[in-house]
Amino acid sequence: MAEAATKSKVDVDFNRIREQFPVLSQQVKGQSLVYLDNAASSQMPSRVADRIDAYHRNEHANVHRGIHTLSQKATDEYELTREKVQQFINAEHKDEIIYTTGTTDSINLVANSFGNRFIEEGDEILLSEIEHHANIVPWQMIAKRKGANIRVIPVDDNGDIIWDEYVDLLNDNTAIVAVGHVSNALGTVHPVKKMITEAHSRDIPVLLDGAQAVPHAPVDVQDLDVDFYAFSAHKMCGPTGFGILYGKKKYLDEMPPYRGGGDMIDKVSFEETTYNVTPHKFEAGTPPIVAGIGFGETISFLNEIGMENIAQYEQELLEYGTEQLQRIDGIRIIGTAKEKASVLSFVHEDIHATDIGTILDQQGIAIRTGHHCAQPTMRRFNVPATARASLSFYNNKEDINRLTEGIRKAISMFE
Amino acid sequence: MAEAATKSKVDVDFNRIREQFPVLSQQVKGQSLVYLDNAASSQMPSRVADRIDAYHRNEHANVHRGIHTLSQKATDEYELTREKVQQFINAEHKDEIIYTTGTTDSINLVANSFGNRFIEEGDEILLSEIEHHANIVPWQMIAKRKGANIRVIPVDDNGDIIWDEYVDLLNDNTAIVAVGHVSNALGTVHPVKKMITEAHSRDIPVLLDGAQAVPHAPVDVQDLDVDFYAFSAHKMCGPTGFGILYGKKKYLDEMPPYRGGGDMIDKVSFEETTYNVTPHKFEAGTPPIVAGIGFGETISFLNEIGMENIAQYEQELLEYGTEQLQRIDGIRIIGTAKEKASVLSFVHEDIHATDIGTILDQQGIAIRTGHHCAQPTMRRFNVPATARASLSFYNNKEDINRLTEGIRKAISMFE
Repeated sequence: MAEAATKSKVDVDFNRIREQFPVLSQQVKGQSLVYLDNAASSQMPSRVADRIDAYHRNEHANVHRGIHTLSQKATDEYELTREKVQQFINAEHKDEIIYTTGTTDSINLVANSFGNRFIEEGDEILLSEIEHHANIVPWQMIAKRKGANIRVIPVDDNGDIIWDEYVDLLNDNTAIVAVGHVSNALGTVHPVKKMITEAHSRDIPVLLDGAQAVPHAPVDVQDLDVDFYAFSAHKMCGPTGFGILYGKKKYLDEMPPYRGGGDMIDKVSFEETTYNVTPHKFEAGTPPIVAGIGFGETISFLNEIGMENIAQYEQELLEYGTEQLQRIDGIRIIGTAKEKASVLSFVHEDIHATDIGTILDQQGIAIRTGHHCAQPTMRRFNVPATARASLSFYNNKEDINRLTEGIRKAISMFE
Repeated sequence: MAEAATKSKVDVDFNRIREQFPVLSQQVKGQSLVYLDNAASSQMPSRVADRIDAYHRNEHANVHRGIHTLSQKATDEYELTREKVQQFINAEHKDEIIYTTGTTDSINLVANSFGNRFIEEGDEILLSEIEHHANIVPWQMIAKRKGANIRVIPVDDNGDIIWDEYVDLLNDNTAIVAVGHVSNALGTVHPVKKMITEAHSRDIPVLLDGAQAVPHAPVDVQDLDVDFYAFSAHKMCGPTGFGILYGKKKYLDEMPPYRGGGDMIDKVSFEETTYNVTPHKFEAGTPPIVAGIGFGETISFLNEIGMENIAQYEQELLEYGTEQLQRIDGIRIIGTAKEKASVLSFVHEDIHATDIGTILDQQGIAIRTGHHCAQPTMRRFNVPATARASLSFYNNKEDINRLTEGIRKAISMFE
């Protein structure tokens, strides 16, 4: 990801882009909001809200099912997003883009459907030690049903995977490797391209949880040669309730459906039902139409800024934030991987993360505290919780300054 | 449902309510839109679009996970919808209301989770002959996995289930009865209360697919004593991508989770994961927050009109539509059950449904044509497809008149 970032020069006025996010101009607890909870969910620019509003007021109809004008237009708009996503992540085929309701849904789809078809008793599912629960629990569920085993790639004290241990863990029983592209709790960017090459040398497919990666840098699924890639609209300035699963056609064609219902079938009788082709095979029932159309607008918005510009700008901000945090006595950054994106996770030697979060909130600064849906990561680093400030391209150095001032104030209150 | 309708006197000005739906005031093919595709998806009143827009511009944050102000407010608003739904369908406990992404998702959840826990080899799953694919395919999938069998309650030529056959089909192997409360293709209102009593006399639980019922009349899950009840926001003037599963706590507590991920867990380790309590156990990952908040506003809107008023008004419109259609030579209504809601499904003796739909669209009239995701229903009535006009409370007699004029014009074009 850093490679892409260094290619471009940031010639974008990110302060003007920030003005397109109305939520950011509000007061919280009497102070102007500093929103640093982007890894949990990001904010929406006006043009995406406008697009959604126009759809609701003038364009709504169910898709794929009607021959009337409104339905045809809604279907065209909804399917246009599939092409935009294909181009955005450089997938080879449009029908490798499956609409889901989010990253969690995407991973559950693969665990369930790929798992039903390809995971057998005694097989191994390889995860990293710092996964989000969304990339742990679905695998535990299918492993239990199939009699397979979870194996874990350890990370070092910086939050980088230990390469030799990864290579050693790959074996003939490994059914799939499933890792986060970027860790939500630590910000580690895993060496995914190298990991995929290594897994493929043994014909093992790889799923990447891209929820924390796609919002922050260009992702090219063909360049990565990744087999499955999952991400969410709401973490990249789009609406909640929508996500993507990219899958290589050679797997998708072999995989059974996940949910049953309308649109995913070919012929239904009580004796026998046959299924539609991918991607429709995996998209049962009336889909989240408005969110899909809103996400199409989101991608256009991101493309106009340029993901390489976003990556470079956010890297500068991350470096600035890291330096500033390191200057505060008693603060320790958790997650110091060689390559990181977006996330500043930290603890104070004496003050619980919750208290820091509460005091920051009283100053209008929104961060997240807790285990970040990554309890094993907390256990690995021997902390009950961290405070996490996570960045977007609409943040700026002033936000970081407000954060560090806020932390200093919190510390002073406990002295 | 008819019983509820006769209790109230319609003293609501439905023409003024119609004005609150901006989509209806547009021109399609140079004529004012007549929207009669409500069984596929309904339209949204301004106040719901306004609520969604305000959320996107000023209120968004992830729920359940943050201690900062925006996240707490979003969580409160999102959870308020659960209380509104509880009251709307008169559930006993708030935690019997599970958020899903729609009826299809709700039924898949039950088929999968109830199925994993309670369906065994040789068991029978009892469906009616006129189910939507969403209430067929999920059951076929779990039946296949568990070695269970699908049994089918036949319907007569009107589209009413044959009572004696239903009673005969119930037996000690019946694991669950799953039927539509209202048929989407025919409009049949099944005698669900009586069916539930009969099933319960043998300790068999009942799931109702309420997608076509909840939008059209009051539904009281305690009065019905139903075990599972599924419905969608987008068919009742709410947003796409959101739905409800009501389930009795005694079942939900015993059922395993459906999807794995954040929020649905208690403790996660690679060795063992324990789960949250219901409803959170079934709600993995970042949910469709904005759709849930929008749906809360939708329920307030419907409550202000009154579901009993809606039921009575729509019944009058259905009767008027039935009479008017019956006067057209060559038109045959498919679905003439004793009790019906919302749906006018019909065929012409010489003209294919698709042609009727296309010619109606040219006159700005939106109906649906095809198998309506109910291929077995089409087979039962020996038709390849029907044309279906489906009503909402914002329709009026003028819409029906435009429809019948349109059909007459279509017929004249083929003469």
